[in-house]
Amino acid sequence: MPTDVEIAAATPMLPIEEIAAKIGIPANEIFRYGPHKAKVSLPYVQGMQRREGSKLILVTATSPTPAGEGKTTTTVGLVDGLAHIGETAAAALREPSMGPVFGMKGGAAGGGKSQLNPMTDINLHFTGDFASIAEAHNLLAALIDNHLQQGNELGIDPRRITFKRVLDMNDRALRDIVIGLGGPTNGVPRESGFDIVVASEVMAIFCLATSIDDLKERLGRIVVGHTYDTEPVTAADLGAHGAMTALLADALAPNLVQTLEGNPAFVHGGPFANIAHGCNSVTATNTALAHADWVVTEAGFGADLGAEKFIDLKCRFTGLRPDAAVLVATIRSMKYHGGVTVTDLTSENVDAMRSGMSNIERHLHNLREVWGLPVVVGLNRFPSDTDAEIAAFVEGIEKLGARVEVCTHFSDGGAGAAGLARAIVEATEGGTPDLHFTYDDGLTLVEKVEKIATTIYGAGSIAIPPAVAKQIAQFEAEGYGHLPVCIAKTQKSFTTDDAMRGAPSGHVLEVREVRLAAGAGFVVFVCGSLMTMPGLPKKPAALAIDVDSEGHITGLF
Amino acid sequence: MPTDVEIAAATPMLPIEEIAAKIGIPANEIFRYGPHKAKVSLPYVQGMQRREGSKLILVTATSPTPAGEGKTTTTVGLVDGLAHIGETAAAALREPSMGPVFGMKGGAAGGGKSQLNPMTDINLHFTGDFASIAEAHNLLAALIDNHLQQGNELGIDPRRITFKRVLDMNDRALRDIVIGLGGPTNGVPRESGFDIVVASEVMAIFCLATSIDDLKERLGRIVVGHTYDTEPVTAADLGAHGAMTALLADALAPNLVQTLEGNPAFVHGGPFANIAHGCNSVTATNTALAHADWVVTEAGFGADLGAEKFIDLKCRFTGLRPDAAVLVATIRSMKYHGGVTVTDLTSENVDAMRSGMSNIERHLHNLREVWGLPVVVGLNRFPSDTDAEIAAFVEGIEKLGARVEVCTHFSDGGAGAAGLARAIVEATEGGTPDLHFTYDDGLTLVEKVEKIATTIYGAGSIAIPPAVAKQIAQFEAEGYGHLPVCIAKTQKSFTTDDAMRGAPSGHVLEVREVRLAAGAGFVVFVCGSLMTMPGLPKKPAALAIDVDSEGHITGLF
Repeated sequence: MPTDVEIAAATPMLPIEEIAAKIGIPANEIFRYGPHKAKVSLPYVQGMQRREGSKLILVTATSPTPAGEGKTTTTVGLVDGLAHIGETAAAALREPSMGPVFGMKGGAAGGGKSQLNPMTDINLHFTGDFASIAEAHNLLAALIDNHLQQGNELGIDPRRITFKRVLDMNDRALRDIVIGLGGPTNGVPRESGFDIVVASEVMAIFCLATSIDDLKERLGRIVVGHTYDTEPVTAADLGAHGAMTALLADALAPNLVQTLEGNPAFVHGGPFANIAHGCNSVTATNTALAHADWVVTEAGFGADLGAEKFIDLKCRFTGLRPDAAVLVATIRSMKYHGGVTVTDLTSENVDAMRSGMSNIERHLHNLREVWGLPVVVGLNRFPSDTDAEIAAFVEGIEKLGARVEVCTHFSDGGAGAAGLARAIVEATEGGTPDLHFTYDDGLTLVEKVEKIATTIYGAGSIAIPPAVAKQIAQFEAEGYGHLPVCIAKTQKSFTTDDAMRGAPSGHVLEVREVRLAAGAGFVVFVCGSLMTMPGLPKKPAALAIDVDSEGHITGLF
Repeated sequence: MPTDVEIAAATPMLPIEEIAAKIGIPANEIFRYGPHKAKVSLPYVQGMQRREGSKLILVTATSPTPAGEGKTTTTVGLVDGLAHIGETAAAALREPSMGPVFGMKGGAAGGGKSQLNPMTDINLHFTGDFASIAEAHNLLAALIDNHLQQGNELGIDPRRITFKRVLDMNDRALRDIVIGLGGPTNGVPRESGFDIVVASEVMAIFCLATSIDDLKERLGRIVVGHTYDTEPVTAADLGAHGAMTALLADALAPNLVQTLEGNPAFVHGGPFANIAHGCNSVTATNTALAHADWVVTEAGFGADLGAEKFIDLKCRFTGLRPDAAVLVATIRSMKYHGGVTVTDLTSENVDAMRSGMSNIERHLHNLREVWGLPVVVGLNRFPSDTDAEIAAFVEGIEKLGARVEVCTHFSDGGAGAAGLARAIVEATEGGTPDLHFTYDDGLTLVEKVEKIATTIYGAGSIAIPPAVAKQIAQFEAEGYGHLPVCIAKTQKSFTTDDAMRGAPSGHVLEVREVRLAAGAGFVVFVCGSLMTMPGLPKKPAALAIDVDSEGHITGLF
């Protein structure tokens, strides 16, 4: 079996102008970035609205396992599957972060016959958006420390600066650092740290902004810390938002690439769904919905994180409404949730598979009963899956009254997702569903978190340490109590404990930290031991990556 | 008078394929990055050699002053001037760093009627090369700390790691930091810091590499620190060089843009000349020399830094030989070197101007007598210059037996540099000069620094603290004694003291620190108080930068 990078490299690409033309984007409104990538021009996309009758499909999944589920693979497969049955479809996806590319997970542009191309470009710098976002973020950080150094006119309390710096890297040694050492010419010593860029509030703002003006206004609202008089200090107070917007102006234009089968994919913005809001940019989703009949978008990790944030944040802010959801599952993941160890996942085990379906059952419940979406379960078939396991899975899903399609797009491309595509077409025939949010704006911040924890995660309660409670009270006193919340927690479990598989109930959601994202428009609750700067594993994926004399890259997967 | 950004925005650009065609680069060998930028394809440029008969002109200058000299402006003006007199010319320039763009200096793409376009793109992210370089650099840094964290198989001594991290930002608070705090999951605590990306050894390697293979081999040679047994540890020992090269493979293709008059400019790589070797990439220079009859390249800051490194490093490594040099000067700079305060520079002061010419006299001596180059002095005329001042300047230069041309390209574009262009054509009619290096490879590291200090800077001696001497002895014991040296020192003076204008003599060059750049192939001697991470000024240029609703950027200068 060839590797993903080999399959992608062996697949000829269409000129990107032809891809654009498939959904009616004129050639003079796109600009190439290298031979196979493009950006759609910003004046063209600014203010672009969903076209009447276009359908938005949300791809989400069961709780992730080491075996991998194939969410992006299924998103790409579904776009190609819709094209296969004669529909016009486009993907709206996040850009991969280089942290995981060099760390554990590898690339994030699909796999097998369901990939985005140019795969190596997308997984590395792509069109430079993440670099622009990091630079804008770090410019604000530098201006904060420079303000302290140059007389501190605003009276910023160095102990109360909450805005950190970012890199697109898994680099745990930067989580907790002391800066400004070495004497008076080197700034004011204080504790700080780096997050990964996908956790940056600038990333969230970039993904939610609908125009340059909206972007600038939101950037100006970022609260970086407090003064000695405990007044909030914003990016606008520091005069940083104009230059930050200038750094992001080119990046705000959505990127256009293609699937291996030559269908359009907008790949733009990329907050993680565990530590951030997990959705690609609004400009990309809106541009796709203005052109394609079907737009397939993915929200990261399991539905408890990705779909919840897609609905409670992106849909709440923008008025976007999905027409249906695909819930991606694998036999291997179900077995893992049923207690099987990673090394035994390729051996048949129908009982464990059945037991692990508790995980998908809860996600299915949330999607259908809590949020009110029509759902098709997409079983991403692997070679090791046995007929007995698949039959038991299908039986289990059908017993829950849901539709399931067994998909083979990894091996077969769009043809392998044609059944899923047809099922989605049928699922949306009842018209746009009435989307429910998990919680109302009117609840307190803590009540919102409680609502998510008890409704979506199956938790019994939430625990908030006194220092965090004090911080929350301050945010409410400052007028931020009406904001929605963004939970940062492990993607691996409904609980804050990675090891708790399946569908645990009655647990306690432990809040560790709370962060205001006033520009993005939400309050982040960091739960359990989740880190907003990941570390590298013992054998980083970077060590296998290489490039030959002609510049061909190997070892990306 | 319109601002630089207004002039650039009002100047229509030719399609970049037309620019390429002017010097015979086929359209299918360039790839657009956005509407007006391109990269020349890497397979096309790899191994490209200078075309027989092509001429290489080095633009350098007097010691920089707050008044500005206009080196890039003159480089661009000379290219347009050569085109004006019927020659085929291209520029080979460095990419601007965003540190100065947001800090004090502003943009670095020329000025007035002698600019590169698209000016705002070039001054901000451009094609993302600096971001790729920073990411490759920081990947190695993350792999070092991860190695410590994951068992430290190589036995790296955390106290002896010399490889820092980088950002493209002026951020003094990151100069001296402690990382790895917060307990066992956050890495091994140790002292470290950030440099600006233009000081990165990866930047130097990127600019010196002649192919992907050469790039990878050099990256692998980077020494990141030492083991507990005081053995050097390289990037190759950590297995980092393959992934680092993959990150740089796209970036290694040179960027092509245009002057306001539609002549080609290769803008690629950008080490500073005060803290690094100060020359654009070898791939860009070679690509330019393979296509254009005249290639005008700039080496940063005064000739003591830029030209010295161009000759002793870039020319030594590559075999490149310049045919002549332009020494850029202004009346205002001469007055500043003659002791006039910044606020009085626009008032006529012939005596001070004459006195300040001691500065240009020494640079002229170095270029002609030490290095053996034909030189034309280009006086970059400003509106405040008086006829008496100019007459005295011309007389002073002619008395030294050199040719001088008064240029008005800032106001008049290429027509204003036609005289300079003609003078350069004449200066090269004697054939390729016999270039002399400042020192031979066979000298010891300290002797090389002494040679530069006494010959080029007019110093009486150099001072090396005992700890630095020990470090130098170690480098020599490890077999690096044959390498050439790269002096990091203030650009503002021949001494290490910013305030010493003109041409001081007999001073002591104070070495503070020494750094091995084994991959780049030189040893860096950091002198005086020069910082490899600049700080922002009290009123950073960033605060004036803004962008309107349509994405048009203002406030860049």
